[in-house]
Amino acid sequence: MDEFSLIKRYFSRHNTLSGQQHVRLGIGDDAAVVEVPEGHLLAQTIDTLVAERHFPLHTDPYDIAAKSLAVNVSDLVAMAATPAYFVLSLTLPEVDELFLQAFSQGLFDEAQRYDMALIGGDTCRGELSITIQASGFVQPDRYVTRSGASIGDVIFVSGELGRAALGLASLQGWEQLDADDCNLCVRSLNRPQPRLDLVPLLLEYASAAIDISDGLVGDLGHILDASDVGASLVKSRLPVHHWIQQRDRYDYALTGGDDYQILFTVPAIKADRIRKRIKSDSLDVTEIGAITRNGFYMHDSDSRVGEGIDLANQQGFNHFAV
Amino acid sequence: MDEFSLIKRYFSRHNTLSGQQHVRLGIGDDAAVVEVPEGHLLAQTIDTLVAERHFPLHTDPYDIAAKSLAVNVSDLVAMAATPAYFVLSLTLPEVDELFLQAFSQGLFDEAQRYDMALIGGDTCRGELSITIQASGFVQPDRYVTRSGASIGDVIFVSGELGRAALGLASLQGWEQLDADDCNLCVRSLNRPQPRLDLVPLLLEYASAAIDISDGLVGDLGHILDASDVGASLVKSRLPVHHWIQQRDRYDYALTGGDDYQILFTVPAIKADRIRKRIKSDSLDVTEIGAITRNGFYMHDSDSRVGEGIDLANQQGFNHFAV
Repeated sequence: MDEFSLIKRYFSRHNTLSGQQHVRLGIGDDAAVVEVPEGHLLAQTIDTLVAERHFPLHTDPYDIAAKSLAVNVSDLVAMAATPAYFVLSLTLPEVDELFLQAFSQGLFDEAQRYDMALIGGDTCRGELSITIQASGFVQPDRYVTRSGASIGDVIFVSGELGRAALGLASLQGWEQLDADDCNLCVRSLNRPQPRLDLVPLLLEYASAAIDISDGLVGDLGHILDASDVGASLVKSRLPVHHWIQQRDRYDYALTGGDDYQILFTVPAIKADRIRKRIKSDSLDVTEIGAITRNGFYMHDSDSRVGEGIDLANQQGFNHFAV
Repeated sequence: MDEFSLIKRYFSRHNTLSGQQHVRLGIGDDAAVVEVPEGHLLAQTIDTLVAERHFPLHTDPYDIAAKSLAVNVSDLVAMAATPAYFVLSLTLPEVDELFLQAFSQGLFDEAQRYDMALIGGDTCRGELSITIQASGFVQPDRYVTRSGASIGDVIFVSGELGRAALGLASLQGWEQLDADDCNLCVRSLNRPQPRLDLVPLLLEYASAAIDISDGLVGDLGHILDASDVGASLVKSRLPVHHWIQQRDRYDYALTGGDDYQILFTVPAIKADRIRKRIKSDSLDVTEIGAITRNGFYMHDSDSRVGEGIDLANQQGFNHFAV
């Protein structure tokens, strides 16, 4: 089977499933042709997952595909964008029909969750690697960037941090977890859930946002760099898996990657409204610190005794260092 | 140097050079934010080049970068789109500053030629591979697809075919060319020139178009499939390098890849206007055949003696077969 039959067979048959309302010309030409709704702008992101760098080699192809799309959607969420369509470039060591069957199923199931259309693609032979470029819609001046944090803003984060890194450590035999914890953490690693549910909240309250793909320190660091501010975190507030808390292994949350939770800052004047919603709506969002003039420190508790740990020189998850 | 410093250093410093008029938020956030001019649609394409599959391993990084962007621009040209912006995902075996220096220079020089902005990117470690997703603008119902060819349409192709494949064959020692021919053909291989100059012509005359990335037979075959028609070509009319003609090695033009010339069809009633422009403007476009009801044949000459060669079952350049 040649490259064209391959693409046709596995990636064309589902291409009318979801997200087609903005697609004028879908997969199968030199380029796709899509529309951007009047009064909107387009948010564009690209992410590549390489086998053994971003996922263990024997990960279920269904999960590899779902994760490849999910990490891109997570970037769109961090901008408070609404997912629209995506293109795929798939590099495979060989034509493996079982792989393609599971991969395409995972891809289209995940696409349907976000009502996104696959509009184009490319297939090559080489080391297993998946690149997705995803587009979403935003309204002018209604998207959230990394650069909007101000001194006094309150820092919130969604979900629980460190699970994915702990899942990877467990798979690689570096840590021993009981079966339930292992399953939960490996599932967090292989099937990240982009926080599309948070987009309205971000639009209403956030001064800055980022998705946690490289670890809390690295990603909050990007906000601090882009906004030219500092931050003070409270360790006891960090929402981490109980294994991490019990063993004081906060490194998994601070510099582990792949959480795909959303970290965002909120002007102090609006923070009480988020705090109320956390309580009343059981919103899984946690207040973890505040934006300061400069420096990047973590104190053990709210009392902020002593200078705290200097996080400024800690690295985020570094794809070139591992 | 970590991933972030890397991206910052080589890909951010030039990012205000070209194509910025439609960029609201450029490289460096979770996603870029761009605009599509009112009344326009967006054409999107993606292409991956893998080392030793799509270019010899020791190709100048400057050329690798330029080609990576050029092949995407060629896809936009085939839609008669105007190039706008692009995102890059670069996978590298190691952090090599000399490589990055030359690669980023080649990328930005090429981007400037098309007035395109680099708006985002990703960098990973792995087998050398470059994915670019490029976007261009089209007006509704004013773009050209593969599916518009009709019986009786005249088939034209730009430039000279087979040079790039011959260049590769020469580099790999399969063919002996003299120094001038070798230089010309290797340059065609490494530095394809997308035919942006043809966009106005395509908009005015073309019923269907495709860029020749996989060889004349495979790519015209895509038009025939998409338009549900056949074609009859005339071998003596094919614009090929003189080496190919002298040795009757038309396989380099028919099934060789990487030419990035434009093949297009024109309704018979408009064809004379193209023929006149070919003569008067020295347009490097050649009439090579006609669209028929069905079948895909090549005759030796215009006299069309005999049945001709059946091209329907010949393969285009197949990335999974080489």
